[in-house]
Formats: sequence, C-alpha cells, structure tokens
Amino acid sequence: MRAEIISIGNELLIGDTVNTNASWMGAFMTEHGFEVSRVYTISDNIIQIKQSIVSSMSESDIVLCTGGLGPTHDDMTKRAVAELFNMKMRTDKEVLAFVQDYFSRRNIPFSHSNFGQAEVPDACEVLFNNSGTAPGMWFNIDGKYLAVMPGVPHEMQYLMQNKVAPKLHQVFGHTTHLYSRYIKTAGIGESTLSDNILGNLDSFLKDGVSLAFLPMAGGVTLRLNGTGSTKSGAEQSVVPLADYIHKKAFEFIIGEGKELTVSEVVGQLLIKSGQTLAVAESCTGGMIANEITNISGSSAYFMGGFVAYSNSVKINQLSVLAGDIETHGAVSKQVALQMAKNVAVKLGADIGISTTGIAGPDGGSVEKPVGTIWIGYWDKTQHFAIKASFTKDRIINKERTTRTALELVRRILKGVDSVPYNLEKQYP
Amino acid sequence: MRAEIISIGNELLIGDTVNTNASWMGAFMTEHGFEVSRVYTISDNIIQIKQSIVSSMSESDIVLCTGGLGPTHDDMTKRAVAELFNMKMRTDKEVLAFVQDYFSRRNIPFSHSNFGQAEVPDACEVLFNNSGTAPGMWFNIDGKYLAVMPGVPHEMQYLMQNKVAPKLHQVFGHTTHLYSRYIKTAGIGESTLSDNILGNLDSFLKDGVSLAFLPMAGGVTLRLNGTGSTKSGAEQSVVPLADYIHKKAFEFIIGEGKELTVSEVVGQLLIKSGQTLAVAESCTGGMIANEITNISGSSAYFMGGFVAYSNSVKINQLSVLAGDIETHGAVSKQVALQMAKNVAVKLGADIGISTTGIAGPDGGSVEKPVGTIWIGYWDKTQHFAIKASFTKDRIINKERTTRTALELVRRILKGVDSVPYNLEKQYP
Repeated sequence: MRAEIISIGNELLIGDTVNTNASWMGAFMTEHGFEVSRVYTISDNIIQIKQSIVSSMSESDIVLCTGGLGPTHDDMTKRAVAELFNMKMRTDKEVLAFVQDYFSRRNIPFSHSNFGQAEVPDACEVLFNNSGTAPGMWFNIDGKYLAVMPGVPHEMQYLMQNKVAPKLHQVFGHTTHLYSRYIKTAGIGESTLSDNILGNLDSFLKDGVSLAFLPMAGGVTLRLNGTGSTKSGAEQSVVPLADYIHKKAFEFIIGEGKELTVSEVVGQLLIKSGQTLAVAESCTGGMIANEITNISGSSAYFMGGFVAYSNSVKINQLSVLAGDIETHGAVSKQVALQMAKNVAVKLGADIGISTTGIAGPDGGSVEKPVGTIWIGYWDKTQHFAIKASFTKDRIINKERTTRTALELVRRILKGVDSVPYNLEKQYP
Repeated sequence: MRAEIISIGNELLIGDTVNTNASWMGAFMTEHGFEVSRVYTISDNIIQIKQSIVSSMSESDIVLCTGGLGPTHDDMTKRAVAELFNMKMRTDKEVLAFVQDYFSRRNIPFSHSNFGQAEVPDACEVLFNNSGTAPGMWFNIDGKYLAVMPGVPHEMQYLMQNKVAPKLHQVFGHTTHLYSRYIKTAGIGESTLSDNILGNLDSFLKDGVSLAFLPMAGGVTLRLNGTGSTKSGAEQSVVPLADYIHKKAFEFIIGEGKELTVSEVVGQLLIKSGQTLAVAESCTGGMIANEITNISGSSAYFMGGFVAYSNSVKINQLSVLAGDIETHGAVSKQVALQMAKNVAVKLGADIGISTTGIAGPDGGSVEKPVGTIWIGYWDKTQHFAIKASFTKDRIINKERTTRTALELVRRILKGVDSVPYNLEKQYP
C-alpha cells in the first residue's frame, strides 16, 4: 500500500521550521507496512493545496496532510479541501463545545475566529483532537483516503496514534508486515559498540533482517528491522539477532523501546529496590531533576534537589566546606563528593548524585578547560566521583553530564560494575 | 523568481533522516530573493526522479536537487538526469584526479565504483566539490536551470555558498530581495493576539508585505516579510507594520530575533537592573532552572534553587509551614507564596519564584484536576501567586508553567502590569 504526505506551511519552505512532521509520519507509516513514496511540502496557497491533493491521491492509497488549520487568515487547508470535493461547511457541536471549554478554562476571551475552528467540511469524519483546538478530519473519496491534521507536532502525533492508526487497521487490514525493535544503549560510543562489542553480524543480516545504528542524544539506539507475511513472522525474524546483541552488550543496554529513556529505567529500578534519590546540580543547572521529573510517578522515588549554581548555595545550603572550594576550586573531586553525600543526607535519600563543571563557553582555564566535569555519587555502600572531559558547547555539556550521571545510577542499581564511557571511579 | 527543491533519498521518506537540507536551502534561496514554492521529497527511483524534475522545471525558474549521487547502486540521480535530457556520460579529468587523490591521502583502495564518481552528463557544467567525492552539476535547459548536488549537508552547503550563489548572481542578476523580521511574543494566545490586540492589518499587508503567526513552544512569533528591489528597500517596507505591532502589543513582546527566548531576555533585564533570582520548583521539577542555566553567563544573576518535589523538602529545606500543607494541600496559594519568599530569602536573591501543581497524568481530584498550577512570586515590593489551569499532559504542563513563570518575571522587570494569559494576581 502506498502513502503520500503533504506538509503545508510557508514556514517550511522559507526554512523557518524544519519538516520533522514528515519524518515522524514517514517512520510511522513505514512501521505500519506502507511504502511512503513522496512528500510534498507546499505553501498555504489554496490552488497548490488542491493540486497536490489531487496528484497525491491519484498516486497512492492514502494521503496524510498536515498544517494550515489554525484560526488565522493564512490557514487555507480546510477551505481548499471543501472546494476540491464540493463540500459545504458545517459546525461540529462536539468540537465547538470543546474549544469553548478550552478557552473558558484558560480565561481567554472566545473570539470570532475561534468559531471557525469548529467548522468542518460536511462529508468528513471528525478525528477529535484532545490536545488542541483544531480537529483532524478523515475523508473517503471514492475508495481513496485523506487524513487532514494540524501541523503542531504533538497534536499531529496524538491524532496519528489514536485516531488514524485504528482507521488504517480498519480500512487496509494487514498487508506486508515490517517489524522494528529498538534496543537502547547508553554510556558507549557507536564505533566501540560496533567494532569492539558486537563485531561482525553478517550471519544475522539476511532474509529481510537489517540493523541500523542510530546515534541519539541519550546514547546509541540499535534498530532491528524484520519483514514477514504475518506480524508474528516479522517479529520472529529478528529474535536471533536481538538475543545475540543482548548477550554481547548486556551492560550497556538500558532496555527496549524507541522512546525509552535512562531516567525512566532509573525510576523503575528505584521503585523495584525501594530506594530514593536526591540530586545536587551545579553545571547541569536543573537538567537532571528535569529529566527525572519528566517521568510520571517520579514523586515515589525522587525527593528533590538543589540547583547549587553559586558557591554561596553550595556552602550555606549543601554544607560544602568553604576551604575545599578555596583550595581545590568549585570544579573538583572534593566538592563533587561533598555535594553528593550532603544532598542525600539532608533530603533523607538513599542515593545522592552531584555535578560540578565548566559548561562553557567561557570560564575555562589551562588546568580546567571548558568541558571539565565532575560527577559525584553517594550511597551507604560507596562514595566516589568521576571526571569527564566533554565539549566546548554549553548545552551539549549539560546533556552529556546529565546522561552520564543517570546512566551511572542505572548501572549501579543494575549491579553492573563498569562506569559509562569507561571513566574511572575516584574515591575520597 | 521561483525556485523548487527536490530532495532524493529513501532515508528521508522512512523517517530515518530529517530533511534539514530543504530547510537550509529554503532559507538560503529566500534570502537571495527567490520564492520557494515547493519541495518534493522522493525516493531513489529513476522514474520518480525524472517526473519530479520535469514537473518542477515547468513551474519554476531554477530547481535545486540533492541526494542520490553516491557511488552505490541505489544512487540514481545522475543516470536519471542524463536519460531525461538525452545526454551521454563523460569522465571529468579534474574530478577524477581529485577523487583519486582523496582516496590515496586516506589510504583507501580505489575501487571500480569510485571511478563512477568522476562521470558526469556531457552537457553539464561541473560545480567542483572540494569537500567530498561527488561533484555538483549545473544544467541550462532552454533557459531554465537545474543544480544537482550531493545530499551530505556540509557538501551541499559548500556548493550552494561557493558555486551556486555566483551562478544565481550571474544568471538572474539582482532580483527581488526578501527581508524577514521576527517579533516574539509570550503569555498570549494566537487568536487573542490577532483578534483583540492587533485587529485588522489589511492596510499594512500590501506591496509585498506579509505577516505570519507562528505558534512556538515559548509563545507566538510574528514573522514580517517585506520585498524590495534593494535590500534596504525590503527592510524599509516592513517598518510601518513592525512599528504598529510594537505599539499595540508592547506588553506581550519579549523582543526581536528568530531564536530569542524568554529566559535570555529575563537574564538581560536582571543584569541591567543588578538583581538576582532564585527558584523553588515543585511541579516543574527543575525545568525553570534548566532553562535559565541554558543561557551562557547566567551565573551572574542566578543564585540557584530547590527542586522541592517531596513535602518533606518543602517543609525542611524551604520552611513551608506543615500546617498549611495539611490544611490547603501542597498545591495551594499559601504554599506557592511561602516557597517563593523563602527561597529568595534563604539564597539571598532579590526575586524568588515558585511552582506547585498537579502535572499529571495522575494525582488530580475534582477540586484540583490535573493541570492545576500555582506560581508564586516574591520581591521586596510585591508578593503574590497566580493560578492556572493547563492540560492533562505532564510535559506540556511543565513547559507552560515554565514559560508562564519566566514571562511573569520578564513583565515585572519590564514594568508591565498585566499577567501572562490574563491570569489574576492573588495576594497573601
């Protein structure tokens, strides 16, 4: 089955916005057994929208269209579709009630253009959108299908997962099945993982089985693809390769699932072991706490923490010895060790972690260049710090420090001895 | 002058690679006075490549095509172009010498397929590529132009800047210049801004001046586009509209610049007024501190903060009265007020802000549903809290609370009375 995508919006053409929606939808449709054969990216121009829909529908079984559904004058998509298929507009009562409620709960005056959000072409089926004010729409035009969705990424994703996917199943049934498994690793580089840990995998890579190394922010993700005439056949085809990877790369694997994060796994392990965590952050400035609290239910194991950005906070709130800051500097083993232990003791947590470093781009010296980072760890059985040298980029340094600290906790909770990126434990 | 872009590569369609090339080229061509009217993203399929080139050349003055120029069997672009225009292939001696040297300097054996890199359709002009082994190509077909470039981003960018740009100048001369100005707002919705604040702008939207509302994570960005026969003419053309917007929407405007963030502006205003900031975060879990410390130089005004996730941290570290938590709940005006004041006093900051709320997806009640958020504010002259009702989505709730809190601080530092999203100040 063939699918085409139409992305509408001037901001995409002049380069203000990167078309991440098309990639997301391409991956989604590929996983659902469709061949995505073309993406049109066009402007909010009614003639171009009509032409592209006609062209795409003639070449494919389903067309996914995003963008141009906002309340302002430059949003043309709904009008284009209604004109193209000779449909009248009707006001959808359910959508109108939702939009009115949405505004009243926010104390925002409901203006004239907001009424338009509830208008849809009369022959469409509304794909109700819980996460925004523009509804999705589903059209069946002589046995070809068109889904129209807003361009806001999280709204489009919500509609694809909750409204379009069931439609695909209902309309197209099962065709060729592609099955993807995502094995996520952390704390190891792509080439070390490939060359030194996994080695030659040619004997697994046949009969439609393929492997991709996807470097992502949190670590390297391995995507295993398999195909089959049934869903379970496709699933089975990748099992030998997956088993082999799990055996060889055990200590680096945080788990499976495209969206799995280290902070999620750390949370599961903390719940399992009945332990609690506290963090004392200097150079990461709240990023570790933010990652941890992105996980629903984190209040069960996360006590909280200090963002000890200034030395006075380190000394007065975290009881770091002022003399150690003077002698060794705020970016030092001694300070990292004290921050980790003291935050855990003060907040009554079982585990404490800390970060102190030079995030950059300014503030480095010959002895401690930008990118010098200390991470501290404390629990009742061990107390150490590790030193890393990252990049000259502030945001990348914050991210790497965050990932390394969380992966360190994961490995300890999992009983794995090695330290991320082969760094060395330094004791008090 | 109209331009179209053709991006070739299966990896773009199945979502493994995001099409950043098209955005980069879109911005480049827009700045050079072209209207980019369409992007085709297609697979490495010879028929589709030919069809797309024919279609794009019929609709535009210049077509920019990237991808499918590698040495492997799935790279089809060169063959498609040669077949389409009935050209023979020739070996380019200069390219061959460069490619051979490239391999020998890297000690890589020169294989048969590498010879193909030096072959080009005979009627093309070679755009010599210093940064890779695939040359760019320039075609003049009956007064319409086609540039073919590799899909590797830094190679494409090198060719666009060093080879295509001079060609554009030579062939099209100075044509129309486009100028874009970005005015960023925060704490106001798109429709309120459009309908209630700005009103009808038709009198400004003529002679090539246009306005787009771009909803982004931090707020609504207004993009003003102007055109002119000179660069300064294009710049001048948007001045009346920009001035009008600044006058009407003054209190909601954080500044100008596509990448400007509220946390950056708050930092500038704190430095200017010589004040310092501290944060006490419950439901945002470190996100506010993280946003603030993403800004280089934030240590000058940011003291740090508490992530007071558990009630015990609120009570023991932030001296929130246990009785108030018992009586009013942790998500209450009383707790938000105490957190904001106490964090500022404890850390010796001039301004304290706090958040406490039900981020979700669980934990709500009838009285306090998921999305109920309190934000507290304290400085020596005022002390209040605001209540907001956001969504059922945890991450969106964290983000909105973060933006609202930072925008609140910005408005106070700027002397603006109104509260983001028209929320109400509630005093102790």
